[in-house]
Amino acid sequence: MANENSTVASYDPRAIRLMTFYDAAIRFRDGSQTPRAYLESCLERIEEREPAVMAFVCLNVEGARHAADRSTERFRANRPISPVDGLPIGVKDLFDTADMPTQMNSPIFEGWQPRHDAACVYGLRTGGAVILGKTVTAEFGVQKLGPTRNPFNPQHSPGGSSSGSAAAVGAAMIPAAIGSQARGSVLRPASYCGNFALKPTFGTIHTGGYHHSSESMQHIGIHAGSLKDAWTICRYTSACGSHPGYPGMTGGMTLPEPAKPQILARIDTLGWCDTDSSTRDAFEHFIEGLRHHGVEVLTATDHPVIAAFDSELTSINEFLLDIVAYELRWPFLELREKSREQLSNIILDRLSRTDSISAEDYAVALQRRETFRARQQAVENIADGFVTLNADGPPPKWDIISSPVYGDVSSAAGAPAFNLPFLAVNELPVGVQLMGFPGKDHRLAAHANWLTATFLFADRP
Amino acid sequence: MANENSTVASYDPRAIRLMTFYDAAIRFRDGSQTPRAYLESCLERIEEREPAVMAFVCLNVEGARHAADRSTERFRANRPISPVDGLPIGVKDLFDTADMPTQMNSPIFEGWQPRHDAACVYGLRTGGAVILGKTVTAEFGVQKLGPTRNPFNPQHSPGGSSSGSAAAVGAAMIPAAIGSQARGSVLRPASYCGNFALKPTFGTIHTGGYHHSSESMQHIGIHAGSLKDAWTICRYTSACGSHPGYPGMTGGMTLPEPAKPQILARIDTLGWCDTDSSTRDAFEHFIEGLRHHGVEVLTATDHPVIAAFDSELTSINEFLLDIVAYELRWPFLELREKSREQLSNIILDRLSRTDSISAEDYAVALQRRETFRARQQAVENIADGFVTLNADGPPPKWDIISSPVYGDVSSAAGAPAFNLPFLAVNELPVGVQLMGFPGKDHRLAAHANWLTATFLFADRP
Repeated sequence: MANENSTVASYDPRAIRLMTFYDAAIRFRDGSQTPRAYLESCLERIEEREPAVMAFVCLNVEGARHAADRSTERFRANRPISPVDGLPIGVKDLFDTADMPTQMNSPIFEGWQPRHDAACVYGLRTGGAVILGKTVTAEFGVQKLGPTRNPFNPQHSPGGSSSGSAAAVGAAMIPAAIGSQARGSVLRPASYCGNFALKPTFGTIHTGGYHHSSESMQHIGIHAGSLKDAWTICRYTSACGSHPGYPGMTGGMTLPEPAKPQILARIDTLGWCDTDSSTRDAFEHFIEGLRHHGVEVLTATDHPVIAAFDSELTSINEFLLDIVAYELRWPFLELREKSREQLSNIILDRLSRTDSISAEDYAVALQRRETFRARQQAVENIADGFVTLNADGPPPKWDIISSPVYGDVSSAAGAPAFNLPFLAVNELPVGVQLMGFPGKDHRLAAHANWLTATFLFADRP
Repeated sequence: MANENSTVASYDPRAIRLMTFYDAAIRFRDGSQTPRAYLESCLERIEEREPAVMAFVCLNVEGARHAADRSTERFRANRPISPVDGLPIGVKDLFDTADMPTQMNSPIFEGWQPRHDAACVYGLRTGGAVILGKTVTAEFGVQKLGPTRNPFNPQHSPGGSSSGSAAAVGAAMIPAAIGSQARGSVLRPASYCGNFALKPTFGTIHTGGYHHSSESMQHIGIHAGSLKDAWTICRYTSACGSHPGYPGMTGGMTLPEPAKPQILARIDTLGWCDTDSSTRDAFEHFIEGLRHHGVEVLTATDHPVIAAFDSELTSINEFLLDIVAYELRWPFLELREKSREQLSNIILDRLSRTDSISAEDYAVALQRRETFRARQQAVENIADGFVTLNADGPPPKWDIISSPVYGDVSSAAGAPAFNLPFLAVNELPVGVQLMGFPGKDHRLAAHANWLTATFLFADRP
């Protein structure tokens, strides 16, 4: 399928240039650029691209300029306060922000202004980050998409539910944005929008002030124009406070040095059968490349521990849908009771399932998730991580809601996972997923760094 | 110490009559009473006792009457919708309520009206419970007490942080109230106010819409005038939705039949050395009674598994204070930044500790808590539960802040625990703590039922 919009350049992951922050921060330090000037370059890009991409619900330009000016003063005084000082960032509109409404793409919360920042927003803000705007989310982060279009072709979808965060980064309007996923809501839009994205281990980032649809599955992730920024922003945000009861991410603030994985387990998840042949071919080509570079790629037929995990993948649909449905109870049963006509049919359909899940069903589903997690972690004994896709193809037409199934695996496992924007299919982005083991984000990042150096930047001009 | 207030009758746990609901519900069914009439009896008691006890921040009398009338209609049609239909209940002012402000005993939240009910409030409300009023809490549930006085002697403390919930039940103004504890904030005020209280296993009740000071320690509990009601209300609330990621309580809605524990482990916690001699004597007398009734009571010197757990008790202060301090980060660092002058010195002192706890310290503290929990659960192999106190004596003078240390054990273990109002010291209440094992609330309730039948009601007129 050729790109139908002749005004849109075809997508080439090796040629594309997204905004990066790590290099700007170097210029902030040596005085050759300022956070305020960097913010202005974002605002110019937004003016240019936003009318077609529609990634933002609202912007706080005045507040952002004030924050960028204060950051500029700190750099001038040689006193930046964190690795995110001066970073312009977008925030998915499911996180509370003290200076902008939080509307969740629902008429129920139209114009609603929370009193306080969400924990991760507050953490970034106190580190000097410039909270620039709220990005479009699917309704309550579930499925009903907003107006956002794919940055590489407006006829196509940005993916969801972190639509605006992924698209704003993919359109090079901002260097990074906060997203979230209970199923595939970070990894899939990152795949569609050509982002680097990291969804770290469950609990490593505080979800206080986030409006959950499935709290025990909910991960916060970062979309960024570079792997370095995705790592540093996640790592810094985690250091501002992990979720109560969970330790934070390990490793330093700077992306770990590249480390070649020795063995990767290839899992095709439940999405492979729905994946189009061009995407399959592109992924097979990537797997050949891995082998060419000396990485051993094992599948379920190669080792019983991988086979045991692979066989559990079919159980995901059984326990995950029950967990997600049961956890909708609060506050969605109340919203349905009081504001039924303001909820989409998608939410109402989900709530029908909620009505049929008992506390006992839920307890069983949680137990099955534990079994799944144990099988996933058992693979650590024989492999450095997993490779798969993040979506069953390039972004579909903009009004199509695609499957989150590739993202379900890492959400169910609570495991860290990257989207690595290595592939192009039909002149649109397709991401590779690299998934690791809970608590080992740092090791996974070293492997992601090696993969990126090897597959994206090796012979890049 | 004699009761200094001659208008206050001396406290006798065997003579006291608190409000009960389970028997009223029988009368609702046979038509000899109505939920509306029952509510009016609460309102009469409130008019009589509230000026001295000051348990409530606010009441929603009109809303309560409306809810009670609807419940009355349901009972008249022989269609009650749950075991809590028609139950007037108080709600600690740290839980969101859609029809009353949530003020947390802080000027920062003066008059603040949330949009939605907290998960457990919504669950009770949809079951037909009559949400009557908000009860006084210590500031943010931490330590700075409100105006509430002990219902048995206004010169004395009701305990905290669930001061109003415990006092309202102890003053027989309402049959039950919702409380919460991260350390001893349910068990201690229940001890001071002569309540039956149950703090079930961590996570069995959804904390959505609750304003946390230490989320990973936070338990919701029920204060009630009877063991039957404490059980049924907890169990029903859990069935409305456990906290995401955690299974709900097991067992039926009705208090399990009495079961005599064969072996109980006696732990003196870190509180024993500060416990006054009269209280020690009363507790020793209770232990003798247990033995007299054929319950084997083991101590650390009797079994190495109990000794292993007992030796871990000293570790509580090391990990618990770090956990509590670290989890204050959000939203209290933001509150301090923006509203410092509206926070008490107690909170500011706590936040000084928060400033000094690193993410690494926190990860170590969580690991130590896991060790502690494993030692606690190992005791299940040799005993049916634990007995100890819930406070280091009878309620102190009203302006004294007493130690939560007896409650720390079950909070740190995430284990279910009851306050059983069996003892009187200096004509004021002292509660016995019965603690069980996580997930075994049902079994513990059967033991609590036997203890209550044996020690409180055996030869009661």
